[in-house]
Amino acid sequence: MPTPISSPRALVSYGPLKSGGWKLKHVSLRPLREKELLVEVVASGICQTDLHFAGAESGFGVHYPRVMGHEGAGYVREIGPGIQIAKIGDPVIMSFSACTACEPCDTGHPAHCADFNAINFQVVPENFVFKEADSAESGPDIYGKFFGQSSFASWSIVGEESIVNVSGLVENKEDLALMSPLGCGIQTGSGAIINAAYAGPNDRVAVIGLGGVGLSAVMGARIAGCTQIIGIDRHESRLELAKELGATHVVKVDPSMDLQTTTAAVRAITNNLGTNITLDTTGVPALIAEGVKMTGFKGKILQVGTAPETATLTIPIHEFMVSGRQFIGVVEGDVIPRDYVPKLITWVKEGKLPLDKIVKFYAADDYETAIHDMQSGQTVKPVILW
Amino acid sequence: MPTPISSPRALVSYGPLKSGGWKLKHVSLRPLREKELLVEVVASGICQTDLHFAGAESGFGVHYPRVMGHEGAGYVREIGPGIQIAKIGDPVIMSFSACTACEPCDTGHPAHCADFNAINFQVVPENFVFKEADSAESGPDIYGKFFGQSSFASWSIVGEESIVNVSGLVENKEDLALMSPLGCGIQTGSGAIINAAYAGPNDRVAVIGLGGVGLSAVMGARIAGCTQIIGIDRHESRLELAKELGATHVVKVDPSMDLQTTTAAVRAITNNLGTNITLDTTGVPALIAEGVKMTGFKGKILQVGTAPETATLTIPIHEFMVSGRQFIGVVEGDVIPRDYVPKLITWVKEGKLPLDKIVKFYAADDYETAIHDMQSGQTVKPVILW
Repeated sequence: MPTPISSPRALVSYGPLKSGGWKLKHVSLRPLREKELLVEVVASGICQTDLHFAGAESGFGVHYPRVMGHEGAGYVREIGPGIQIAKIGDPVIMSFSACTACEPCDTGHPAHCADFNAINFQVVPENFVFKEADSAESGPDIYGKFFGQSSFASWSIVGEESIVNVSGLVENKEDLALMSPLGCGIQTGSGAIINAAYAGPNDRVAVIGLGGVGLSAVMGARIAGCTQIIGIDRHESRLELAKELGATHVVKVDPSMDLQTTTAAVRAITNNLGTNITLDTTGVPALIAEGVKMTGFKGKILQVGTAPETATLTIPIHEFMVSGRQFIGVVEGDVIPRDYVPKLITWVKEGKLPLDKIVKFYAADDYETAIHDMQSGQTVKPVILW
Repeated sequence: MPTPISSPRALVSYGPLKSGGWKLKHVSLRPLREKELLVEVVASGICQTDLHFAGAESGFGVHYPRVMGHEGAGYVREIGPGIQIAKIGDPVIMSFSACTACEPCDTGHPAHCADFNAINFQVVPENFVFKEADSAESGPDIYGKFFGQSSFASWSIVGEESIVNVSGLVENKEDLALMSPLGCGIQTGSGAIINAAYAGPNDRVAVIGLGGVGLSAVMGARIAGCTQIIGIDRHESRLELAKELGATHVVKVDPSMDLQTTTAAVRAITNNLGTNITLDTTGVPALIAEGVKMTGFKGKILQVGTAPETATLTIPIHEFMVSGRQFIGVVEGDVIPRDYVPKLITWVKEGKLPLDKIVKFYAADDYETAIHDMQSGQTVKPVILW
């Protein structure tokens, strides 16, 4: 017998956040279809990507009304036809979805799925999941399944591919809440370092931008035992936090000064060798260009931050070739979440990934404060509790 | 007792080739210094890099008078103090030099040696190796040790680091002559595919530019068993040769047409997936940009061709990130010649690397014909016999 849904609520984006378009509403959910699960959501991290896709009036992947949220964790309460990945009662952490059939999926790179954008951001009628509880509409008219999960809801319908079953790995609800962001922000930063760049003890790493992804990269570099871990940000508080999380050095970006001073500082720290691994989380072209310059011979520049769609990077071809550098695009740490999230859980339990230092919990009713605190920089990773 | 040097000759570049600055001269050689070997050169391939560095009046790495040549093979006739790599009589193939001490050298990437340019292209007084036989000068005044070897000479002084000892691997002088280009052009193309890109049976490879390096890349892709090998060039004869050497498809670049037609052709051949590996040997920025476009999800673009010093590549950051592509600079196939050249020798012997299809021998006296035939495209890899 499925657990009855008790008065589900969702944070519905009716329009851009900045115009007050996000509202907490009582909702009802449509029945499950094939390859779907009903999840009672315990918690969901807030990520810049939520604000991006429900922050504009229109544009690629912008659809209203929709429930955002893609760092969810919860318990399976009902399973649709064809579900093998979990049974009722299992704790799950949710991640992105992928097609499972294209070449990148087939070769272990689902984050670079050829249909990633369509599957995670675009909408089809089947993605109408919610409707307002008091709506007179006959069917659901609020989009769900953002990143296959739309976890800004106390109950949600989740696509099978977004499910990481953590049964036997996460024992209680509190731990599950803490670990809710593992399936996006944390895997993106740490995965890029550990999984995409194969960082090791001899590596000198620079991380540009110390938000949730950047600080996860710092923690990942510490787990990998990197010899130098250089955190780069504008905010003193983030630099302090980076040091606490494993940065061996920090460089403050002073917006009033030439960005080349940042590169010069990194070059000095690395005894003029430059880094072996540079990770950009900002998507700011001028910073990415400096990232290329601060990278040494045979070094990798990992592009993890989302740049504006039309932004470009200018690479000096000959110099880049001679130095054997590599510019690499990386989405979601290029991980397979079902393999990688369990590793992250182990590291959290062992104290190697001190998530508690970056996560702050907020009641769902306080979502505005949570978003405000993220935007102001007070909180690195706000997590909404349902 | 060292073998006496019998009337050594060298092709001396007194000025740019196009101004008639290259002359075949009788020379004498100074005594060996520490870590040097005297090699009786059997043969030396001619490479575009020789023409580049002795083709201009001045510029980086341009020094006159100098003996070029960096695809040499021969026999050791004398060894200087401290030499362990070979003994008198050993057959050797010569390659580039590296410092052996910097981080790239220390981690197995000598072709990206931090001092590569200084060691291989620049000159110091110790590099005066030759003088004209009838010169009244008291000391040598012609530079040698280009790429550590200056093998456009019947006898030359070679730095220890440029030596690959092929004793026991190459049995006779004819084979040694055939294999002389292994230490540069052949390893550059095949090494990029096999060693830097780890090509395998599932890979779809495009090679832009079918000179010695590009055709070696085609042969390398065949050795790696790649499923599609697409040769791209302007010249019909090169496309035919590429097919003979393993290309499964060819695309003719028509200079009068938009280069996007080339990309469209590759996309069509790959069932619109794009390539997994694209290798540019041309250094032409417009072609490199097409190379990026013809590369699919998680694909690698290998920059092997030397672009003009100021040339740039414009990368659309967001699209590049989402697709997980990699732009990678590769010099000399990123190989360790002493490990890789023996593999190449094995492949030549097994018939997997049919060098005889691209090599044509010329007597040293006919060097002008050899260069002419390379420039006109008649000969892929001219090899001078001493």
